[in-house]
Amino acid sequence: MNVDASIESCCPTFSASGITADVGLNSFQTSGNSPGDLQRCHVGILGLGTVGLAVARRLTGPDSIPHLTLTHLCDRRARDKQARQGAALAGLTWTDRFDDLLASDIDIVIETIPGSEPAVDYVRAALLAGKSVVTSNKAVIAHQGEKLLALAERQGRQLRFEGAVGGAMPIVRALGDGMAGDHVLRIDAILNGTSNVVLSKMETTGCGMDEAIAEACASGFAESDPSEDLDGVDAAAKLAILCALAFNVRISPSAIDTRSTSRIGAAQFAKAKLRGGTIRQLAHAEFDRERRRLEVWVSPTFVPHATLFSTIHGPRNAAIISCVYAGDIMLSGQGAGGDASAVAIIADVLTIARDRAAIVPAPVLVPARTIQGFSDSSFAEAV
Amino acid sequence: MNVDASIESCCPTFSASGITADVGLNSFQTSGNSPGDLQRCHVGILGLGTVGLAVARRLTGPDSIPHLTLTHLCDRRARDKQARQGAALAGLTWTDRFDDLLASDIDIVIETIPGSEPAVDYVRAALLAGKSVVTSNKAVIAHQGEKLLALAERQGRQLRFEGAVGGAMPIVRALGDGMAGDHVLRIDAILNGTSNVVLSKMETTGCGMDEAIAEACASGFAESDPSEDLDGVDAAAKLAILCALAFNVRISPSAIDTRSTSRIGAAQFAKAKLRGGTIRQLAHAEFDRERRRLEVWVSPTFVPHATLFSTIHGPRNAAIISCVYAGDIMLSGQGAGGDASAVAIIADVLTIARDRAAIVPAPVLVPARTIQGFSDSSFAEAV
Repeated sequence: MNVDASIESCCPTFSASGITADVGLNSFQTSGNSPGDLQRCHVGILGLGTVGLAVARRLTGPDSIPHLTLTHLCDRRARDKQARQGAALAGLTWTDRFDDLLASDIDIVIETIPGSEPAVDYVRAALLAGKSVVTSNKAVIAHQGEKLLALAERQGRQLRFEGAVGGAMPIVRALGDGMAGDHVLRIDAILNGTSNVVLSKMETTGCGMDEAIAEACASGFAESDPSEDLDGVDAAAKLAILCALAFNVRISPSAIDTRSTSRIGAAQFAKAKLRGGTIRQLAHAEFDRERRRLEVWVSPTFVPHATLFSTIHGPRNAAIISCVYAGDIMLSGQGAGGDASAVAIIADVLTIARDRAAIVPAPVLVPARTIQGFSDSSFAEAV
Repeated sequence: MNVDASIESCCPTFSASGITADVGLNSFQTSGNSPGDLQRCHVGILGLGTVGLAVARRLTGPDSIPHLTLTHLCDRRARDKQARQGAALAGLTWTDRFDDLLASDIDIVIETIPGSEPAVDYVRAALLAGKSVVTSNKAVIAHQGEKLLALAERQGRQLRFEGAVGGAMPIVRALGDGMAGDHVLRIDAILNGTSNVVLSKMETTGCGMDEAIAEACASGFAESDPSEDLDGVDAAAKLAILCALAFNVRISPSAIDTRSTSRIGAAQFAKAKLRGGTIRQLAHAEFDRERRRLEVWVSPTFVPHATLFSTIHGPRNAAIISCVYAGDIMLSGQGAGGDASAVAIIADVLTIARDRAAIVPAPVLVPARTIQGFSDSSFAEAV
C-alpha cells in the first residue's frame, strides 16, 4: 500500500512552478515597484491578537511561504507585545502607528483587529494608499464591505475576506468562485464555533449551559462573556456576508432575526433526543428570486441525527449550500483558532499575489427590512 | 422570519460589478482582440455528450451568463447531434472539424470528450492557438496535466479542470487555492459516483451487486459496463490529479493500488453492519513529506456509522482533506450528471474571464513506483 516515492523534487503544497513570474508580471505591475522588487510580495499585519500572531508565526517560521515576506507588525500595544515575542519576529519593524504601514513598501495589509471601528478606517486608508487588504474582520465586511469593495476596485487593488466567515472552511471562495456558475437558493450553516462547542458539550455530557460555557472558557473556545456568540450576533454578521456573496442581497446584521442559544438547557436536549436529534445554533438564509423575499435567521435549531449538522462537534463550522444546478454542496472545517484563520488569510494573500484584478463580487445595495419574529417554540425547525 | 426585501437590484449570483472591465483589461489583453471585442468572452465546446450539452444549454438558456457568449459547437457527429437539438442551439456554428474552433475568435475551449486520446492533442492545439482551455477530462489531466499546464503557462493562457474531479464538489479549487497556505497530509474521498450509487443501494435495500448495477443503469448513473467505475480506474485517475494538487507529487493512475468493488456482496454488508458501519469505495492518499513516501489506494472500505462517508448516498462525492494547520476540511457535492459538471466548468470559465495569468499549480514530475498489494481481507480499513 506504500509507495517509496523517491521524489526528486518535493515542493511545499502551495508552490507552483512559475509563481515568481506570475507575481512579478501580474500582481503588482502597476504598483510602482521596480521590476527587481517584483519577485517578492511584502506583507504587513495590523492587529496582533490570536489570529494576527498566528499569521506572523506562519510567515516567519520554518513553514514560511516563498515569495511572501512579512516586514511590518502594527498594534496599538506594539511595545508590550514585541517584548513578549521570540527571535523569529524580532527582526521585523514593530510599530504602533498605522501610518508607518501606509508609508512602507508593503503590498498587502493583513487586518485582524476586532470590531468595526476603527478597522473600517484603516482598511479604507490602506486601499487609498494603494495597498491590497486581507481581513478576517466580519464586522468590517458585514457593515462596510460593499463600499470598501467598490473602493478597492476603483483603486485597482483587492480586498479579500475568506477568514471573516467559517474559519478554515473555504465558504467565501466556494460561494464567490465555485458556485459562480450556479444560483444559490439557500444556505444553512453553523457559523459560530463557540456556540457549537457549548451545545455539543451539553449534548455529549448532559451538563448544563453554565458548566459547558465554563469549560469552553477554560479550553480557550469562549470568552468570559460569550453573549455575542450565544445570542447569534457573531453568526448574524457572518450570515450577512454570505447573503451578499450568494444572493447579491445586502442585509444589515442587526436586521437578521436572532434567537438566543443561552436559553437552551438539558430539558431541550432531552426533548430533542426523544425526537431523534440534537440541537445546534444554525444560521439560515433562503432567497426567493422571483418574489424577492429573503428569509434569514440565526437560532438554536433541532437537527435530526445522521444529518451533517448533528455530526459537527466542538469548534467546527459547517454549511450546506443548496443550488439550482449543483444541488447541495456541503462544507465543514475548523471554525475557530489562530492557525485555522491564518490558513484562510494566507490563501487570500497568495490569491492576491497571483491575480491583479479586484474580482471579489461586490454586494448589491438593498434596503435592510424588519424581519418578523419567531413563533413561540424555543427553537426553530430545521427543514 | 421573512423579509419582504423589495430588492432594488437583483443580479445573478455570479455577477460582479465591473466584471466587464476585468475581462477587457485582464483576461485577453494580449490575445490580439481589438478593444471593442473585449466586452465579451467567446466560448466554444468540444464534445457534445451529456456534460458538453449541459454546458451548452446553460450558456444559451434563460439562465445564461452575462459576458459569456457560446459561439461554436464541435463534435465528430455534429450533423446528427445538431438535428436533434432545439432552437436555442440552432443559431450557433456547428462543426465536426476542430480546426474551425482553432481558427475562430473564441477565447476559451471547453473540452468534454471522453478518454485521453485524442483529447490531449486537441487541448495542446488549443493552447498553441492561443486559447485557454477548461476541461472535465480526468484522463487528460491525470496523464498529461503537467506538460499541458506548463504549455499553458508558456502561452500565457490558462488550463483549468475543476470538473475533472468531484463533479460539483469544488475540490480542485479547495486544494489549489483554499489550502494554498497549509500543508495537506492526507486525502480520503469518494470520487466515483457510480460505485457510490451501487454500494449505497446495496446497503439500503439489501440487494446484490447485479441488481444494484441494473438499477443504476436504469437511472442513468451507470454504463452497461461499469467496470472502470467499480474496479477503481476512474477514481484512481482522479486521485492522481489530487495528489499533484495536494502534494506536488506525480503518480501514474496505473501505479495506484486498486481493489475492485465488484466483489462486494450482501455478506460483506452484513458483516460491516455488525461492526457498526457500512462499505464505500474510498480513494486514499497520504504523503509523508519527511520520508517522501506516498501511500495511495482505491478500495471498497469499511466506514463506521456517524462518519461523513457513511452518510453519503447516491451519486454524491465527498472528501476529507487533513491539513497541518487547518485540521480536517470536509467537502461533499453531486459527483455525476451534466448539470453538476456544468457548474464546475462554468465556474472555471468565469475564473479565466477574470484572471489573466496561468496560475494553476503545475504538478511536479516524480517517477511513478510500484505499489505493494493489499492484505488478504476483502476490503481495506478506514482509519
